[in-house]
Amino acid sequence: MVKYLTQSEAINVDQDLFKKYKFSVDQLMELAGQSCAIAIAHSYPLSSHDNANNILICCGPGNNGGDGLVCARHLKLFGYAPKLYYPKRTKNDLYENLLHQCLENDIVLIENVTDLQKKNNYLLIVDALFGFSFKPPVRPDFISIMDYLKETTVPICSIDIPSGWDVEKGKPEIGSINPEMLISLTAPKLCAKNFSGKYHYLGGRFVPNKLEKEYQLNLPKYYGTDLVVQI
Amino acid sequence: MVKYLTQSEAINVDQDLFKKYKFSVDQLMELAGQSCAIAIAHSYPLSSHDNANNILICCGPGNNGGDGLVCARHLKLFGYAPKLYYPKRTKNDLYENLLHQCLENDIVLIENVTDLQKKNNYLLIVDALFGFSFKPPVRPDFISIMDYLKETTVPICSIDIPSGWDVEKGKPEIGSINPEMLISLTAPKLCAKNFSGKYHYLGGRFVPNKLEKEYQLNLPKYYGTDLVVQI
Repeated sequence: MVKYLTQSEAINVDQDLFKKYKFSVDQLMELAGQSCAIAIAHSYPLSSHDNANNILICCGPGNNGGDGLVCARHLKLFGYAPKLYYPKRTKNDLYENLLHQCLENDIVLIENVTDLQKKNNYLLIVDALFGFSFKPPVRPDFISIMDYLKETTVPICSIDIPSGWDVEKGKPEIGSINPEMLISLTAPKLCAKNFSGKYHYLGGRFVPNKLEKEYQLNLPKYYGTDLVVQI
Repeated sequence: MVKYLTQSEAINVDQDLFKKYKFSVDQLMELAGQSCAIAIAHSYPLSSHDNANNILICCGPGNNGGDGLVCARHLKLFGYAPKLYYPKRTKNDLYENLLHQCLENDIVLIENVTDLQKKNNYLLIVDALFGFSFKPPVRPDFISIMDYLKETTVPICSIDIPSGWDVEKGKPEIGSINPEMLISLTAPKLCAKNFSGKYHYLGGRFVPNKLEKEYQLNLPKYYGTDLVVQI
């Protein structure tokens, strides 16, 4: 059975990918975000009605947000109409370029939560706020978007970790989001055992066999050239 | 009908992707190489006999060779047994890391052409030697591998440009390779009109709509979440 990683295992696997296997963040973020877009398109198929294809992508300041920016761009290439909410932008070339690529692909940027609430006609909301290195509490900048996600009736797809959940213990007793879809990247984290939504996918088909063995990840088998697999 | 690019158009599109749209080489090379691996797996399916899955990937010193290194790694993830021939290595972090990733994924490196000739049991040879910025003549370092490719009876898959062909005029009158498969990246180049092999694919699904319109590329429509399309 597939292994569910602790927070420190997840951090170690990540460090190994970059330091030992010498992948660049650009490479793995591109593959991770692309796999998210593919899993979403499988679960929430494109409609022939253009206005039924709006997807809101909420991006945090770290790598989880970067995966969201890449996911948004690939969703756009697949024909969806993604909109970005990205309240706290990381000041480095990679993140600035990922945002630039989104804007040049005509992805709309929504500046504040009040505007999100007005337009609630989303097919899906992608939660790319916090990833596996999250430690509570949620910072003030993100409280209003977290409140919005807790209250919305639109289905939520969380990338890697449902934001606000404990990476190991899972859903907090009160006031948490309840995603309908979860896309684990590289390998699922312990909190995913608590996930009871409709769709759980694994994405990020880039794990070297050697690393999989070292950490005994026991990943589910990807079929053919598929870049995602349902867990 | 899809536009076939001149050499200078191909160079301009490439420059725009990096400078105007601010993609990194890491990002686009990852997507390009991945799409090559997918197209190859569609055309030359994985066999249940392990020793029937050997693919030789010949990499040149430039971006075409980089696409080949990425392609090799994804072929390995798909279950093939890729071997690399990479006679002239580019000394920069990106290329050194791409090679490192291949080696860490247990991809075998073949050091000289004589060893290639001895083991001729390849399912396919991938030609990732020269790309769209190639100008003849072939440099001395690559004459022996080019001779091998001209003489082999193993099917060849060329990435973007069949090596040794003129990017615009196509196949030279004498002494050229005859690939069975061609994978055009971003958009086909003029020489692809001369291609008469079995499989012609387009890969590299990352072209922003704005760029496609500006250059009137008129790309074939990718289906669903497919990352390659047959031309």
